[in-house]
Amino acid sequence: MSKRNAFYAQSGGVTSVINASACGVIEAARNHADTIGTLYAGRSGILGALREELIDTNQESAEAIAALKYTPAGAFGSCRYKLKGLDENKAEYERLIEVFKAHDIGYFFYNGGGDSQDTAHKVSQLGEKMGYPITCIGVPKTVDNDLPITDTCPGFGSVAKYIAISTREASFDVASMAETSTKVFVIEVMGRHAGWIAAAGGLAADEETDLPIVILFPEIPFDQAKFLAKVDEKVKEYGYCSVVVSEGVHHPDGKFLSETGQRDAFGHAQLGGAAPVIAQMVKDHLGYKYHWAVADYLQRAARHIASETDVEQAYALGKAAVDFAVAGKNAIMPTVVRESDSPYRWTIGEAPLSEVANREIMMPKEYITDDGFGITPACRAYLSPLIAGESYPTYHNGLPRYVQLKNELVPKKLKDGFEV
Amino acid sequence: MSKRNAFYAQSGGVTSVINASACGVIEAARNHADTIGTLYAGRSGILGALREELIDTNQESAEAIAALKYTPAGAFGSCRYKLKGLDENKAEYERLIEVFKAHDIGYFFYNGGGDSQDTAHKVSQLGEKMGYPITCIGVPKTVDNDLPITDTCPGFGSVAKYIAISTREASFDVASMAETSTKVFVIEVMGRHAGWIAAAGGLAADEETDLPIVILFPEIPFDQAKFLAKVDEKVKEYGYCSVVVSEGVHHPDGKFLSETGQRDAFGHAQLGGAAPVIAQMVKDHLGYKYHWAVADYLQRAARHIASETDVEQAYALGKAAVDFAVAGKNAIMPTVVRESDSPYRWTIGEAPLSEVANREIMMPKEYITDDGFGITPACRAYLSPLIAGESYPTYHNGLPRYVQLKNELVPKKLKDGFEV
Repeated sequence: MSKRNAFYAQSGGVTSVINASACGVIEAARNHADTIGTLYAGRSGILGALREELIDTNQESAEAIAALKYTPAGAFGSCRYKLKGLDENKAEYERLIEVFKAHDIGYFFYNGGGDSQDTAHKVSQLGEKMGYPITCIGVPKTVDNDLPITDTCPGFGSVAKYIAISTREASFDVASMAETSTKVFVIEVMGRHAGWIAAAGGLAADEETDLPIVILFPEIPFDQAKFLAKVDEKVKEYGYCSVVVSEGVHHPDGKFLSETGQRDAFGHAQLGGAAPVIAQMVKDHLGYKYHWAVADYLQRAARHIASETDVEQAYALGKAAVDFAVAGKNAIMPTVVRESDSPYRWTIGEAPLSEVANREIMMPKEYITDDGFGITPACRAYLSPLIAGESYPTYHNGLPRYVQLKNELVPKKLKDGFEV
Repeated sequence: MSKRNAFYAQSGGVTSVINASACGVIEAARNHADTIGTLYAGRSGILGALREELIDTNQESAEAIAALKYTPAGAFGSCRYKLKGLDENKAEYERLIEVFKAHDIGYFFYNGGGDSQDTAHKVSQLGEKMGYPITCIGVPKTVDNDLPITDTCPGFGSVAKYIAISTREASFDVASMAETSTKVFVIEVMGRHAGWIAAAGGLAADEETDLPIVILFPEIPFDQAKFLAKVDEKVKEYGYCSVVVSEGVHHPDGKFLSETGQRDAFGHAQLGGAAPVIAQMVKDHLGYKYHWAVADYLQRAARHIASETDVEQAYALGKAAVDFAVAGKNAIMPTVVRESDSPYRWTIGEAPLSEVANREIMMPKEYITDDGFGITPACRAYLSPLIAGESYPTYHNGLPRYVQLKNELVPKKLKDGFEV
């Protein structure tokens, strides 16, 4: 097999460990210099391929690449851009082939969630459908933890750890204040469809640390009376209560909780998220003073407290993608296979891209307590290993040292640009 | 001098290191067992004294007390309760004396901010004005960093570190997404009157890490046109921008930015903070997609990433309070005295409670850049040492191990209760 170049891109919402996957891909590619020539990274994901904006990763030192393992977000830029079907927008695929040919790209590594694995799957069909053979491997990534087949998704474990820790810390805070001030603390977390991140808030309490935590899952239609009764019960028992609310919580009619019908001076729909709505509801009906937080990007960018398990898996899956490609595999995505919960053991498996694309995995019913506001022991057994271990970055002047790459583009070889 | 008991209480909003001060007080008191008998902690601050709800800290093991150094929030409960003047509510002071007499309390340690040092100051006058001599020492605490005389306040350095790190991390995130999605990220931080915490967001960028950050200080009346022009300039230069907004930012007429005039279904004023208002303003006028976060309690409870400098100072000031008391000093508060910026050197000083009470220190003008949106090198030189070092807690199952004390109350000796 003659040596060919490779293309790697980051796609969709970024995480605190997607760069650890990039590190795995790049280091593995460098180790396979007999098979893989230059590894190009797409500037802003797949857009980099369409626009022929290819970053030459060889311009980055081994130290800079190693530092990616400790740097959050997408070092090459990500994008929210989904390729249409081959039949719908053939021009895009023709352009991809044109760029790939010009730069002799024979390997395609695409690092993203469900939509992105769909893109990877379409690219893997270029050989069969358009006569341009290319080895195409997906690398899983999503804080939402909603990819099928793989036991978990890189990015999720670190968000889960951040939310579990933050919920524990804020619960200690409100416990201190409850006698004369705040009695209910509300934290809003990501997860528009699946409640995996909200579930992680439940880890804040455990056999050693007794805290009253009420979780609002997007999987459970919101029942105001039941929710308020639950909060009131906790406040009466503990003196305070923490509420972890998923941004995706909705009323039985499907309307998101955060759609309050409020308008600002410009006539725009209200600005707030679910947390302020829940907090105000508690105040109105129970009279308890509240505080609320919206974690937003802080949760998925919190590399400073990333899960060691998550970082290791992110790196291993990136490396596995290259190893699979070099071994002649195609149209697959490496996965995490759980061998046991305790002690936690995992290995790398593989899943066909055709089976990964466009499938979202919700929380199983047996992971949510019967009352709908907590996590079960089975859920805890699943989640706990994913937040295990601390993978601290190095610090300089009190701040984590995160690398900013040079991101030098290679000269374009094509005369024409491409409008996306 | 005969041996007498001591009373310690936590007051006002808690921090991630106020328990480190408690640890310093308790360990020092145990080391002075020849002078100080039992150290009682007030359950929920000064209320514990008024209600005769005294926690016997001797019931806690040395390990549990040592663990306080790594545990956020107020382990004995805090309160928002300010004693009135002696002339206004003599009954409260008479009650304090009654409780202190009943339990032979001769030392009073009060851990809090400006209002609390005012309370400590009033208690210190009990001897002179009401014939009950008591040694009274304040222990500084406030995330707002607004106490006079002391170079900094325990609690602030850790919040500053958290905000600097979070702003850096979220800026990396938005940089990744900016090409096709979010271009402006807004984080709301605490600080209703002084912009110290907002200023810490400016540390996210430094000579190694180039990030576009716009800060909105409560010290600078909000100028919408100037602000929008600044954000637009940053987005045009970098492709994205992060905004750190203090909750206390207000219009020139003094009205807080967060007062949008919105009403919910119950007719209550709007729910949101300053961040969503700023984010929506950017969208309306510049058309940039945004994300926003409100850190709220997460910032002041984030013991997992506390500043080592802050933890050390919190502990040292707690210990110094006891050492001062044992040395016969009275009506003072130990302070941090900065000897040099770089290398950072500090010692413990002292300030009379009369000069600490009820004085708020704002950011000096020379700490804010001329355009009003950034921090100057002088500000950086002041802030940097305060966030230096990481004081990590120990972890168990992926979560920090924070201690929950037994908090056993000693039997009441007085027949009557007290309504507060």
